[in-house]
Amino acid sequence: MTRVLTGIQSSGRQHLGNILGAIRPAIKRANSANTESFLFIADLHSLTTIKDPEVRKQNVLATAAAWLACGLDPEKSVFYLQSAVPECTELTWYLNCFTPYPMLANAHSFKDKSDKLSDVNAGLFDYPVLMASDIIMYDADVVPVGKDQKQHLEMTRDIATKVNLAYDKEVFVIPEAAIDENVMTIPGTDGQKMSKSYGNVIDIFLPQKQLKKQVMAIVTDSTPLEEPKDPDTCNVFALYRLLGTDEQVAEMRQNYLGGNYGYGHAKKALLELILEEFAEERQKFDELMTQPDAIYEALEKGAEKARVVARATIGRVREAMGY
Amino acid sequence: MTRVLTGIQSSGRQHLGNILGAIRPAIKRANSANTESFLFIADLHSLTTIKDPEVRKQNVLATAAAWLACGLDPEKSVFYLQSAVPECTELTWYLNCFTPYPMLANAHSFKDKSDKLSDVNAGLFDYPVLMASDIIMYDADVVPVGKDQKQHLEMTRDIATKVNLAYDKEVFVIPEAAIDENVMTIPGTDGQKMSKSYGNVIDIFLPQKQLKKQVMAIVTDSTPLEEPKDPDTCNVFALYRLLGTDEQVAEMRQNYLGGNYGYGHAKKALLELILEEFAEERQKFDELMTQPDAIYEALEKGAEKARVVARATIGRVREAMGY
Repeated sequence: MTRVLTGIQSSGRQHLGNILGAIRPAIKRANSANTESFLFIADLHSLTTIKDPEVRKQNVLATAAAWLACGLDPEKSVFYLQSAVPECTELTWYLNCFTPYPMLANAHSFKDKSDKLSDVNAGLFDYPVLMASDIIMYDADVVPVGKDQKQHLEMTRDIATKVNLAYDKEVFVIPEAAIDENVMTIPGTDGQKMSKSYGNVIDIFLPQKQLKKQVMAIVTDSTPLEEPKDPDTCNVFALYRLLGTDEQVAEMRQNYLGGNYGYGHAKKALLELILEEFAEERQKFDELMTQPDAIYEALEKGAEKARVVARATIGRVREAMGY
Repeated sequence: MTRVLTGIQSSGRQHLGNILGAIRPAIKRANSANTESFLFIADLHSLTTIKDPEVRKQNVLATAAAWLACGLDPEKSVFYLQSAVPECTELTWYLNCFTPYPMLANAHSFKDKSDKLSDVNAGLFDYPVLMASDIIMYDADVVPVGKDQKQHLEMTRDIATKVNLAYDKEVFVIPEAAIDENVMTIPGTDGQKMSKSYGNVIDIFLPQKQLKKQVMAIVTDSTPLEEPKDPDTCNVFALYRLLGTDEQVAEMRQNYLGGNYGYGHAKKALLELILEEFAEERQKFDELMTQPDAIYEALEKGAEKARVVARATIGRVREAMGY
């Protein structure tokens, strides 16, 4: 049995890029045999940038609802809130004492963030250690990471190895990164990678009217209606091909090349495709969002399972370190 | 009722400098009316420099035994191990997210330590935030600090104030520093301030033979036996005057000035004075060290009381921040 751990950012709602790039692959893994998945919503990490309590609660609810709506089975997987297992902060302290200061000061993500953000706080600095704690707490064998998280996983392995060497025993399981080099980059409404921070997302869980507004706002060139258009440079087509069947995509390509087919038509078709593709997810999401207690209950069940593993790890660590 | 909080370093045994400079004043405060004292052994902080589990356990036991032997009443005060209230690490994470990175990077103590130590870890960097957490967790009104800890208390006040302002309510009590400008500096065996890191301590809890060795090793000049000696520049006299009665000290001064009184005589007199002054404490310490379970039990009782306050604070913080 391979234990796979996935951390879920909760600094906003889950958009189409998250669904195609992260949620669906994770759920596929979670449902595969010989795999036990731990998935947590990183609401402690979110405090580094989000201080507003209502925003945090709404983000957490919408994020959990999105994953459940997309088919995550909370009985089969261990799905929980990071903050429901405060043991991870205790482990963070122990790990801090084995983490070289320069390693954190030179981390890419800290340098990037401290260049961009006005609030450069110690939480941002210590971010990778809390992440390491969340990973090794659960004896994770494998952590699927994007290229941008590769360094964080290297740090996790370094810190865990340092502790194992210091106490000459296997206090921690050393996790492996699973870096999917073929991971899809989902383009946003402006053609850049879809990302909340670029303001170019499509949030498929929005009410239809607002969703339509996002789709209609996709950036296109100004080729007149009657002229042929190049599907391969068009942001609308780029999204359409991700969701459509081969036949639908081939037909849309013909529409582009044939002329007398405007971007407005293509956007309308994309919207319809989205509404069709995610009809079930949208309905499930809306239902869940009216029942926050059911969401919290599912998360709490996951936390109970997570805490059993966390307590065992903390016990092992305290014994090794003399607490 | 004023709540006074005292953190006790546990990176070594408690020496004469600790007893006269910290333990006795703290116990005096703890026994005074209208004061409620929280005293904890900072065994989580000690991991920044001490990794060996046996050393940590021995330091914790000897430190607790020293305080109890000197008369700390664990029924009257809340006396506990920092690591027995892991909530302090959870609070540390929350506080990290309100602590400006440059504030920690520019802290005197971090700069000093990172110049001196080879193992500059993230725990050393985050040290002041764990300290802030330990203080404001317990709604401390007053924290007695030496001049070297003044900056840490300023940071604590800054961080706590930032959180109160962010949530526009009194999440935390803002603690006051009680800086005793008249605090005694206890000279070590070489005349410098007595400190473990200078290797110049007198450990009054040692077996008599080893204690004698420490006293006999006090540095003196080489004035011959028969000549008069200057008490006011002598390390032996400096310690003698701290412990002797006015009469004893006056008599010793005469011995010095009269000649035909060697440093060996003075050291022997000092040893006798120590053995007499601390007879009860030494006996109590030895008894306690044979009953580690009794020590742990006393500390656990304190931790139970501390955790009640800690849980209330964590509840307040989580509510304010949206957890």
